[in-house]
Amino acid sequence: MSNPSLLILAGDGIGPEVMAQVSRIIDWYGDKRGMAFDVSEDLVGGAAYDKHGTPLHDDTMAKAQEVDAVLLGAVGGPKYDDLDFSVKPERGLLRLRKEMDLFANLRPAQCFGALADFSSLKREVVEGLDLMIVRELTSGSYFGEPRGIFTENNERVGINTQRYTESEIERVARAAFDLAMKRNRKLCSMEKANVMESGVLWREVVTEVSADYPEVELSHMYADNGAMQLVRAPKQFDVIVTDNLFGDILSDCAAMLTGSLGMLPSASLGAPMANGRPKALYEPVHGSAPDIAGQGKANPCACILSFAMALRYSFDTGAEADRLERAVEKVLADGVRTADLMQKEGGTPVSTTEMGDAVIAAL
Amino acid sequence: MSNPSLLILAGDGIGPEVMAQVSRIIDWYGDKRGMAFDVSEDLVGGAAYDKHGTPLHDDTMAKAQEVDAVLLGAVGGPKYDDLDFSVKPERGLLRLRKEMDLFANLRPAQCFGALADFSSLKREVVEGLDLMIVRELTSGSYFGEPRGIFTENNERVGINTQRYTESEIERVARAAFDLAMKRNRKLCSMEKANVMESGVLWREVVTEVSADYPEVELSHMYADNGAMQLVRAPKQFDVIVTDNLFGDILSDCAAMLTGSLGMLPSASLGAPMANGRPKALYEPVHGSAPDIAGQGKANPCACILSFAMALRYSFDTGAEADRLERAVEKVLADGVRTADLMQKEGGTPVSTTEMGDAVIAAL
Ligand SMILES: CC(C)[C@H](C(=O)O)[C@@H](O)C(=O)O
Ligand SMILES: CC(C)[C@H](C(=O)O)[C@@H](O)C(=O)O
Repeated sequence: MSNPSLLILAGDGIGPEVMAQVSRIIDWYGDKRGMAFDVSEDLVGGAAYDKHGTPLHDDTMAKAQEVDAVLLGAVGGPKYDDLDFSVKPERGLLRLRKEMDLFANLRPAQCFGALADFSSLKREVVEGLDLMIVRELTSGSYFGEPRGIFTENNERVGINTQRYTESEIERVARAAFDLAMKRNRKLCSMEKANVMESGVLWREVVTEVSADYPEVELSHMYADNGAMQLVRAPKQFDVIVTDNLFGDILSDCAAMLTGSLGMLPSASLGAPMANGRPKALYEPVHGSAPDIAGQGKANPCACILSFAMALRYSFDTGAEADRLERAVEKVLADGVRTADLMQKEGGTPVSTTEMGDAVIAAL
Repeated sequence: MSNPSLLILAGDGIGPEVMAQVSRIIDWYGDKRGMAFDVSEDLVGGAAYDKHGTPLHDDTMAKAQEVDAVLLGAVGGPKYDDLDFSVKPERGLLRLRKEMDLFANLRPAQCFGALADFSSLKREVVEGLDLMIVRELTSGSYFGEPRGIFTENNERVGINTQRYTESEIERVARAAFDLAMKRNRKLCSMEKANVMESGVLWREVVTEVSADYPEVELSHMYADNGAMQLVRAPKQFDVIVTDNLFGDILSDCAAMLTGSLGMLPSASLGAPMANGRPKALYEPVHGSAPDIAGQGKANPCACILSFAMALRYSFDTGAEADRLERAVEKVLADGVRTADLMQKEGGTPVSTTEMGDAVIAAL
């Protein structure tokens, strides 16, 4: 049997720097654990635009469809701010999500013990926080038609469409219930069913699916209250399921609760392929951070932990994922800090590569 | 000249209790400051549904159009959870907003010195916080057509439409710039222009309007980053302008930063009427809190401070608004606390009426 395949799309800004550390860790798994991967690399976002005039070349799209998992760094940067909407770096990422049909975006918001003081929230509010947001990723206001800027009655009108079918809601709800079963069996679904019919349908379908998961305690919350509760008492949540746009905002809110964005990974999963593995893309939650790009300052941990998620969800090696996650935790506990993790302490931060060194040493 | 007119719609849950304290304060202004108001009362939300089978009777709607300002308590409650979408308590409030064309929703998030420890955020992050969110309130995903639950290809589809015209964006942007001019001249506009064309148009129009306000420093932020920045460092903001749905979530997030939801008022303003006053509705940010309704425990301050906003924005008596706001601050500084303000201290909380007594005494 051939090795599992990975496509690395490092992207823009700090993407290539943090991904370089992941490449070293992939090599480590090949050398030390006998887990060799076939790795190919390609361009996405501004980097792809610079070369091909499009943020995702069709050949890259085709490759992404074939591999076992895509690892993505980050896309975007001020250089591309004035590009037309249709070729912005983000469109490359959105095309990957849509065409690979990666409907379940898993965003853990986990507060690392060693970093609890980094949060703008009080230690007791966030210490031990470990919640998972499951965000629908292929539909809703991000993709609904009609969309665009039109002229009506002599003025411009901007239109997007929030649109969810029953089966779109059902499949992401199942993903969330499945996850809840592996965790603390508590699922909170968030929408605006008091204001939007798409939210009414969302609530109905999630409730219907819950019949198949009698052991999971399901609750519903309006998304505005959800934002409040995340700030007030985030530890009340285990798994949260919500739509694409609410998920974008709520997961960023949840991420910031932990105070260390440079630590947070994500997985975007689709339907199983012929080999049984889900279509999958893994990427850090942080962006391309153009202000520090190319300086060797970036924290590679979020990208490294995204690879840990790949080990768990694509390659079914939870034990190896645990190993990598524990290595990162140990490094933090030892006080190794990139610049973003040093708001308060004195001392010299380590570089991106030194952080990679430390994680590999801890493995 | 006749007295200015007020329509009180106390609504559901704790609405009537907190509004009763506002009525006393209105009387105080008549007795002690020679500012008599013509006050009428009517039903909204579940209370209106119980009596009329609709959450807002046409006669009430007509009255709301005629008065100088509407004061609203809160709507909703579990009793109404299973009502059809079209007659839910919220529809009464949404109809008022839409038919009065109250396009600018002002939501201050202010951290009261005496309450800074209530926040789940660290004191230094929120102490002195004083930001204003201007939320568009009559358009966007809340009202756009088509909307509803349809059947397509044998399954249900939930649809809502995000739709903004240039003039809708322009008028709320002007309201926000005008406010920024009276404050610290910093305005941040939030949308998802990287993903949604409605956000692209939003950003363009806000930028165009900024030409008329050269003294205001304008910035743009994606709404997901906005949620993060609100949690990370809210004091970076002065005025924020955003659309109806983002505003719903971001203003609740901002409100919770202060830790004391029972303190936060809001104003919803429309175009000037013949007498020069804007169409206006004032309501607390908190909901109807059915769990404590009827027990005399609710904090009336948010509703009282909403009346202070009425004094400022409808009746152009900033000095009287200041007086009322200072009275509330003094009461807090004196340690008077309703139950919601007592997470930590010992002692017995005061009742809703006693809080009203204290504010009147401080006036
Ligand atoms: C980069 C952008 C298109 C993207 C989104 O809006 O989904 C990002 O914010 C995210 O959450 O992954
Ligand atoms: C009650 C509800 C309809 C309303 C809204 O969604 O606008 C509320 O959440 C608010 O923010 O005023």
